[in-house]
Amino acid sequence: MYKTLKSSLNNLKENKLFELLVITVIIISALEIGAKTFELSSSAISVTKILDVFITVFFLFEILVRFIADDDKKNFFKKGWNVFDSLVVAISLIPVDDSEMALLARLVRVFRVLRMVSVVPELRVLINSLIKALPQLGYVVLLMFIIFYIYAAIGSFIFNEINPKLWGDIAISMLTLFRIMTFEDWTDIQYETMEVYPMSWIFYLTFIFFTAFAFLNMVIGIVVNVMEEEHRSAREEKEPTLTELQNELAEIKALLVAQQKNK
Amino acid sequence: MYKTLKSSLNNLKENKLFELLVITVIIISALEIGAKTFELSSSAISVTKILDVFITVFFLFEILVRFIADDDKKNFFKKGWNVFDSLVVAISLIPVDDSEMALLARLVRVFRVLRMVSVVPELRVLINSLIKALPQLGYVVLLMFIIFYIYAAIGSFIFNEINPKLWGDIAISMLTLFRIMTFEDWTDIQYETMEVYPMSWIFYLTFIFFTAFAFLNMVIGIVVNVMEEEHRSAREEKEPTLTELQNELAEIKALLVAQQKNK
Amino acid sequence: MYKTLKSSLNNLKENKLFELLVITVIIISALEIGAKTFELSSSAISVTKILDVFITVFFLFEILVRFIADDDKKNFFKKGWNVFDSLVVAISLIPVDDSEMALLARLVRVFRVLRMVSVVPELRVLINSLIKALPQLGYVVLLMFIIFYIYAAIGSFIFNEINPKLWGDIAISMLTLFRIMTFEDWTDIQYETMEVYPMSWIFYLTFIFFTAFAFLNMVIGIVVNVMEEEHRSAREEKEPTLTELQNELAEIKALLVAQQKNK
Amino acid sequence: MYKTLKSSLNNLKENKLFELLVITVIIISALEIGAKTFELSSSAISVTKILDVFITVFFLFEILVRFIADDDKKNFFKKGWNVFDSLVVAISLIPVDDSEMALLARLVRVFRVLRMVSVVPELRVLINSLIKALPQLGYVVLLMFIIFYIYAAIGSFIFNEINPKLWGDIAISMLTLFRIMTFEDWTDIQYETMEVYPMSWIFYLTFIFFTAFAFLNMVIGIVVNVMEEEHRSAREEKEPTLTELQNELAEIKALLVAQQKNK
Repeated sequence: MYKTLKSSLNNLKENKLFELLVITVIIISALEIGAKTFELSSSAISVTKILDVFITVFFLFEILVRFIADDDKKNFFKKGWNVFDSLVVAISLIPVDDSEMALLARLVRVFRVLRMVSVVPELRVLINSLIKALPQLGYVVLLMFIIFYIYAAIGSFIFNEINPKLWGDIAISMLTLFRIMTFEDWTDIQYETMEVYPMSWIFYLTFIFFTAFAFLNMVIGIVVNVMEEEHRSAREEKEPTLTELQNELAEIKALLVAQQKNK
Repeated sequence: MYKTLKSSLNNLKENKLFELLVITVIIISALEIGAKTFELSSSAISVTKILDVFITVFFLFEILVRFIADDDKKNFFKKGWNVFDSLVVAISLIPVDDSEMALLARLVRVFRVLRMVSVVPELRVLINSLIKALPQLGYVVLLMFIIFYIYAAIGSFIFNEINPKLWGDIAISMLTLFRIMTFEDWTDIQYETMEVYPMSWIFYLTFIFFTAFAFLNMVIGIVVNVMEEEHRSAREEKEPTLTELQNELAEIKALLVAQQKNK
Repeated sequence: MYKTLKSSLNNLKENKLFELLVITVIIISALEIGAKTFELSSSAISVTKILDVFITVFFLFEILVRFIADDDKKNFFKKGWNVFDSLVVAISLIPVDDSEMALLARLVRVFRVLRMVSVVPELRVLINSLIKALPQLGYVVLLMFIIFYIYAAIGSFIFNEINPKLWGDIAISMLTLFRIMTFEDWTDIQYETMEVYPMSWIFYLTFIFFTAFAFLNMVIGIVVNVMEEEHRSAREEKEPTLTELQNELAEIKALLVAQQKNK
Repeated sequence: MYKTLKSSLNNLKENKLFELLVITVIIISALEIGAKTFELSSSAISVTKILDVFITVFFLFEILVRFIADDDKKNFFKKGWNVFDSLVVAISLIPVDDSEMALLARLVRVFRVLRMVSVVPELRVLINSLIKALPQLGYVVLLMFIIFYIYAAIGSFIFNEINPKLWGDIAISMLTLFRIMTFEDWTDIQYETMEVYPMSWIFYLTFIFFTAFAFLNMVIGIVVNVMEEEHRSAREEKEPTLTELQNELAEIKALLVAQQKNK
């Protein structure tokens, strides 16, 4: 009897209409979250409460369907997206009354929108490829962090007394440097320190050059990675390599030489 | 007699001088629109009124020429540019007196400048290729929208009471987030919320990283698309593929092996 | 005797040391221009006056050397760089006393620094390749201008009364739109018009999207152009094309088939 | 006996655990530098003093190990990274009491964090490749400098009296132009000069176009360089060139023609 249930749930899971229904419920849940940020009439609030219960129950139902229909239950929670979906559902189930917890509960409900990514395969592929690209950029990010750290240390040693709000300690300084990297009112900061240290423009200009250069390197790194990936996949699937052609030419030459000797 | 008219109109339509005349009238219409934004003397205003009538009549004449000269009248309005041209002409023909409608009429006349795109083939190709590139970017745009939606929801839940002008509801919050993405005075917003929630810089920094990453992905997606298109068209037109060369080598080998056996 | 002069001047022109001397004088002239922007003592001012005369005479001498040494005097002034160099020298020769003209004379002297580009061949190549790249971008620039024109017309029709300093006429509006494209305090402009027209954010967001898209297209256009250029030059110089290889294979096959028939 | 010491130190240097220890000490030194920017209790300060001594001694020990273990002592100081490491250690050894020197000593200690780059090979490769890429960009940087210099000279000639803080002399003007290039409040500067010279927007717009164009060229230059490098390394390592294939085809044809004659 369990087998019948499992196979019928599997059919349900694979059903295009069911997939569409799941996406629709996620969109409704997103719209509900958006609606809650507006001031609502009391009747609208009661509607959202009912919707909340319905969405939680539906998500619980859907994850159970997916779990029961899965052949390989041991590895179900080894897939990141399944863990994410289950967590979002589980936390929604915890009853909250306390007003402080209510904010947290609201925030968790926001992450239901991310379930869109776990349900639409194309988005999942996109996110996975982004995550895969990260480690390749590891050393450029580390280099950038070292640049930030050194400049933040220098900045908080020298400029600390000029404006402690911007250069108070190394953590605040790094935030200020990030602001400078985005060019957001960076000259205000520069003019302030130039009053005391007229040469401090060197600090800002070298910082901007180094980070711009490191950032450029990061972008080029990504582009080159993507293109190599393309070349490799193009090579593997469609066409013979030049090396293969060379081997065939060598075989033909061997045949011709053998003919010559036979005569 | 209709046939004679049609062929002579077709000749007119294909005539380089006529094309040039159309472009000239569009440029005059653009200049007139620009002139109207300056304060004009009453004599200049009466000139623009006469010009208006002349341009409307000329555009009507031109679209009629194109329509009559067209062999396939059923599909004339299936082409987007024809529909656009006809709409612009049609709306210009509606007489307006009411002052409120006058502004609308002015705005419609502005779109006459866009007729430049429908007349110059190179611009039409450019726009068409832009529109074709859009659906391929669909999922990255969807992902970006999800990021915006989640951050806007979180922002309006948490920061609502700090500054309702920036975080009042999810729509306002999304506009504020777009502002942050353009780095426009984003630290003012950040410092304001950091007074209440000192850790809220995490909100801004993660948002900037996610959108920058998604944007980068979009740009790389476009570049890769463009290059694949180039490769494909290069391959199709000019050169034999390596696979074809391989096939020829196989034929040569077969010929040689056959020779060997014949001896 | 003219021939002797010409050949000896040609030797001088080709001399590495003379080239270095010209570059040195240009650098001195640049430094002098820079020095003049600081407040100078009266003795320093008299030094710059002597320097001015010396530099003018030297540049006159150098252009005469180049002109006399040139074999093809008819086409000497058909080269843009020669015309530029001669103009800069000629204008420097005009005596100026009037204080208003003095500013103009100063400005012309600034362009002596550009002679650096006309003397160093690598910089000349760089500029020439930039100028060559421009016409290919022509239509994207035209499209961008149309977008600017339409938005400026709409902006000055609708927002004119809100802030005539920003939206007074189509010319001012285009400057304001350029400011918005650089994201420079664009939200201040937006918030101002949103007070009157709450939906005017659509105007700004669509404008930013269109220009960003057109700009992206421009960048990709340049990159693709550069790469095609690279591919073409790589193909022309070094390697046989696949088509050539295919032709050779066809010849080999023909030889083998002929052998078969002979037997 | 010296040989035994050298070989045992070489073993130590190559030891993975020792490498990890060096990295750990560098990280501790970085954390210590960061901690010093916060206000510390007196006990914490005494801890940092002890740490300082320990780190200095450890770095001295490590550089001695590397020096003694090196086979080619003459060229030890010809490697940039070794010179850098030794300098950082040597300056740390100078005892400082004077409060002014204390700041300098602190700053030198900050550069210990850069030792991370000299120790982690992947970061060293990254920096080396950045430094290698610089000379290829030399002429674009020179061109950009010429653009800056000319505009700064013009700016300080014309706008000097409007705002000497921004356009006082050529050095200040170049800083102001860098600010304009980063789009940081550039319209404030523009509006100020447009009050006196209404046409001065031409100055700003042309400057932005020229620098954007030169910058774009720089980026494209880097991308093309990187890709050519890729192509070259791909060609050298893996595959035969088309020219090699052509040569082999020529040999086959020669064999066939020889056969034909023999008959």
